[in-house]
Amino acid sequence: MSEGLFGAIEAGGTKFRVAIARGRDVIADTTIPTRTPHETLTATIEFLRTWEDIRSVGIACFGPLDLDPASPSYGSITSTPKRLWEGTPVLAWVRDALGIPGAIDIDVGGAALGEWRWGAARGLDHFVYVTVGTGIGAGLFIDGAVHHGTGHPEMGHIAMERVAGDKYPGRCPFHGACLEGLASGPAIEERWGMSAGQLSDRPEVWELEATYLARALRTFTYVAAPQRVVLGGGVMQHGGLLDLVRMKLEEQLAGYVTSETLRGPLEEYVVAPAHGQDAGLIGAIALAMEAANA
Amino acid sequence: MSEGLFGAIEAGGTKFRVAIARGRDVIADTTIPTRTPHETLTATIEFLRTWEDIRSVGIACFGPLDLDPASPSYGSITSTPKRLWEGTPVLAWVRDALGIPGAIDIDVGGAALGEWRWGAARGLDHFVYVTVGTGIGAGLFIDGAVHHGTGHPEMGHIAMERVAGDKYPGRCPFHGACLEGLASGPAIEERWGMSAGQLSDRPEVWELEATYLARALRTFTYVAAPQRVVLGGGVMQHGGLLDLVRMKLEEQLAGYVTSETLRGPLEEYVVAPAHGQDAGLIGAIALAMEAANA
Repeated sequence: MSEGLFGAIEAGGTKFRVAIARGRDVIADTTIPTRTPHETLTATIEFLRTWEDIRSVGIACFGPLDLDPASPSYGSITSTPKRLWEGTPVLAWVRDALGIPGAIDIDVGGAALGEWRWGAARGLDHFVYVTVGTGIGAGLFIDGAVHHGTGHPEMGHIAMERVAGDKYPGRCPFHGACLEGLASGPAIEERWGMSAGQLSDRPEVWELEATYLARALRTFTYVAAPQRVVLGGGVMQHGGLLDLVRMKLEEQLAGYVTSETLRGPLEEYVVAPAHGQDAGLIGAIALAMEAANA
Repeated sequence: MSEGLFGAIEAGGTKFRVAIARGRDVIADTTIPTRTPHETLTATIEFLRTWEDIRSVGIACFGPLDLDPASPSYGSITSTPKRLWEGTPVLAWVRDALGIPGAIDIDVGGAALGEWRWGAARGLDHFVYVTVGTGIGAGLFIDGAVHHGTGHPEMGHIAMERVAGDKYPGRCPFHGACLEGLASGPAIEERWGMSAGQLSDRPEVWELEATYLARALRTFTYVAAPQRVVLGGGVMQHGGLLDLVRMKLEEQLAGYVTSETLRGPLEEYVVAPAHGQDAGLIGAIALAMEAANA
């Protein structure tokens, strides 16, 4: 059942996007800054409460989250540099306040679900959804569901082979020069000392970025053997970057492939998300529908 | 049904181990050198034919393999540096010659299945089985089955962050300094210019090896979020290496974990296989049982 009204929350580190959807179509939405849990969640709940007959609520949330259904703190934020939010029981708080069923997933897991139901990964059994923006995260979708495993994947934190000559130390507070530390939006700006807008006509910037992303995609490919990689996020808005990543990934694989999908030019293998910057919110709608049918 | 006689084949690049099992217990076995497909498969089939009432046959085979059940070449070897074997329909050949049901998986997939049924990964939902020997391979087990995806994982070929000062170029014919290129048994011997036996009391050798393996395990951990990593193969027989890998993996994760399992000292997280060098053969028995019940 995908009919009726659903509440959707894309809970991000700087803002919450909150929407009411009829089926999968957003009919009202608002943006709330991420301040204290009390302030932000109260405003979120107030917005959703103005609507009657919401069947369920879905939350695509920044993490890390406790996603073990057997855990007493299921649906809570765990250890995060955003200290105010550590331990916040996001799912329980929202669900109990509204008195309706709810479901939560990590932001990239929600986005993956949305792209699978209505987007660039429709009908696939296995794929990876990667977002490159303020951070780098990825959702792993396997056999009809977002894969969590123990905790959930944190693909932005893999160890990276550094490009020769790149002296930038990386900015991950845990790992320094991991994928996110080297290739997130803030890392690009810090490395080159100017805003992404000012860097748009500097080919060496995007050449380097594409190299790191292609190395990461090679790793995701060899570890999880997805049918497709959906590659989005703010950084990927740079014109030509997606094609550059495809080209460099083909070089990286060096012909060592176990599937015809992986022979170039990879236009079917590495694709942009259908929902662009709305992937998280659309994913939250998909999560709400799952909660309604659970 | 796990009763009766089963045929099991661990098809390796240098030798085939062929066994008859009653239930999971090997009651007869032989070793056949890997020569031409005709020679080796004929000898394999002859050995198995001396037994009557074999219910089914399982094959844990070197790869890459076509594992797409919908493909006309399902169960065949695809592109391999072992040119004589390229395109060999291993499963169809053995199954048709014996006239019994058969199942095939990549060697590490079979070994993962065996460790899950009867070994170090019993009862888990998600784990990674890694073998470090002549090559480096890994099987990804998710939700009760070996995950293949499109083709199958080839985790030995991920891009690696090189250890500062290590000038060895790597020996992978495709990628040079990928995980397998830098850290397989032959890579260790080529880098240091002597046999592994002669290197056993050189701590710097194992320090370097543990660093590469820990970096790879960090990547597998962040990509797939397994409950456990089973780490075996000939290279892991070196005394103390397993502990060194655990210690260095803890350093690599740097406290950024989404599950309590990943807080040190990782003795439950990174473990040796229960079946050691027999993991592949035991896996082939498990595959045979799956074929009998299919």
